[in-house]
Amino acid sequence: MSKEEIQLPSLEVCLSPALLHLHEVKGSIVVIIDVLRATSTICTALYNGATRVIPVATVPDCIRIGAELGAITAGERDGRVAEGLEHGNSPFEYSRDFIQDKTLVLTTTNGTKLLHMAKDAEQIITGSFPNLSAVCDYLIAQKRPVILGCAAWKDKVNLEDTLFAGAVISRIKAHFNINDDAALAAEMLYSSNEDKIQEIMTQASHYKRLAKFGLQKDIQYCLTPNGANVLPIYKNGELVIAK
Amino acid sequence: MSKEEIQLPSLEVCLSPALLHLHEVKGSIVVIIDVLRATSTICTALYNGATRVIPVATVPDCIRIGAELGAITAGERDGRVAEGLEHGNSPFEYSRDFIQDKTLVLTTTNGTKLLHMAKDAEQIITGSFPNLSAVCDYLIAQKRPVILGCAAWKDKVNLEDTLFAGAVISRIKAHFNINDDAALAAEMLYSSNEDKIQEIMTQASHYKRLAKFGLQKDIQYCLTPNGANVLPIYKNGELVIAK
Repeated sequence: MSKEEIQLPSLEVCLSPALLHLHEVKGSIVVIIDVLRATSTICTALYNGATRVIPVATVPDCIRIGAELGAITAGERDGRVAEGLEHGNSPFEYSRDFIQDKTLVLTTTNGTKLLHMAKDAEQIITGSFPNLSAVCDYLIAQKRPVILGCAAWKDKVNLEDTLFAGAVISRIKAHFNINDDAALAAEMLYSSNEDKIQEIMTQASHYKRLAKFGLQKDIQYCLTPNGANVLPIYKNGELVIAK
Repeated sequence: MSKEEIQLPSLEVCLSPALLHLHEVKGSIVVIIDVLRATSTICTALYNGATRVIPVATVPDCIRIGAELGAITAGERDGRVAEGLEHGNSPFEYSRDFIQDKTLVLTTTNGTKLLHMAKDAEQIITGSFPNLSAVCDYLIAQKRPVILGCAAWKDKVNLEDTLFAGAVISRIKAHFNINDDAALAAEMLYSSNEDKIQEIMTQASHYKRLAKFGLQKDIQYCLTPNGANVLPIYKNGELVIAK
């Protein structure tokens, strides 16, 4: 039988939150992708034993919820720990020693915005290179329509989230019907550059922003598959490891 | 001197009309890209001697303006010549015998929408593979900021317009400062597939739509460089060949 006859679920890529309205969120699994660095840090904290990660949109929300829950607060603005918060966005801040059995309240701009926009989805999970395999395995097992949602940068398409979408597609495409040029383009982009992701990323705008702050080690980690291979799923306002 | 020191103009890619607000249209040259088939047909008609092409948004506007000017009216809806119009969107309809010294009033959905959205630009020109070199030569000569504007398909990113943006960038990037991930991605996509554009396009959603109508010959022409190498420029509501 052809793919169409078996009626595989659809897979689409949304390259920017400003394009999300073009996709049918209801009934789909939306994968929130914010490679540098929110979703890489989220899976790392959970992998290292955090009880949950609560994503919030603003610094005041982060301070308030952190105080209510006695949780660790984290978030950056313009490359520095935001005033009133305790920690930054680097995955290296969330070692097992530090984060095990704790709640992390994290404020990010691009990723959190997209997550809240996707609230009508059937399920919301987060994806990044450190949990690439977990994302792929989960999506194959669920057999539902998928939207790979790139958080982008202030709505502008970015290279790292697009490449991650391509990495997922290259691994799971046999299980989905893909009739979406953004998905085709993301996969072609990834497949042509699979062996030089770190190298091509040095041209990306976000790389240049982060490199100014000496964060090359963060970037390298965030572009390496399966360093924190768990699946964060969003339930009742919290990201926890999917059972 | 480095590129930055010489202060080259910027070059950005807008992958969908829904992202145009992220770009500084004022002061820029906006290149309207609607490869299948509006901008390919526009340069072909002008190359073959049309006096001007007037792009309009709706079928009633096309009929009314066509009647006022005694012009040829053209446009399709759902793959057929729209009711009340005389001709379709195929570049092969506009041979020199037919179109020389005539005015063409053309209604298209995606391309015309983007063109009207970009009305505050310093200049608006149209680009497609049949006039690839003319577009590149013009942009290099002008030394102004450039936005390569993909018409897309109902705001969804499409492969052919993205590939054309990449083709332009690969030829003119030494003359511009590029700090835009969409531009990087478009160029990488094109450069990795330069020798197999026709082949990869068979996977694209628009290819499938047009192939259903037996339009493979149109597609092949629209993906081949420099078959109608003139530069359409938008002035006072009309596209004419730039002097």
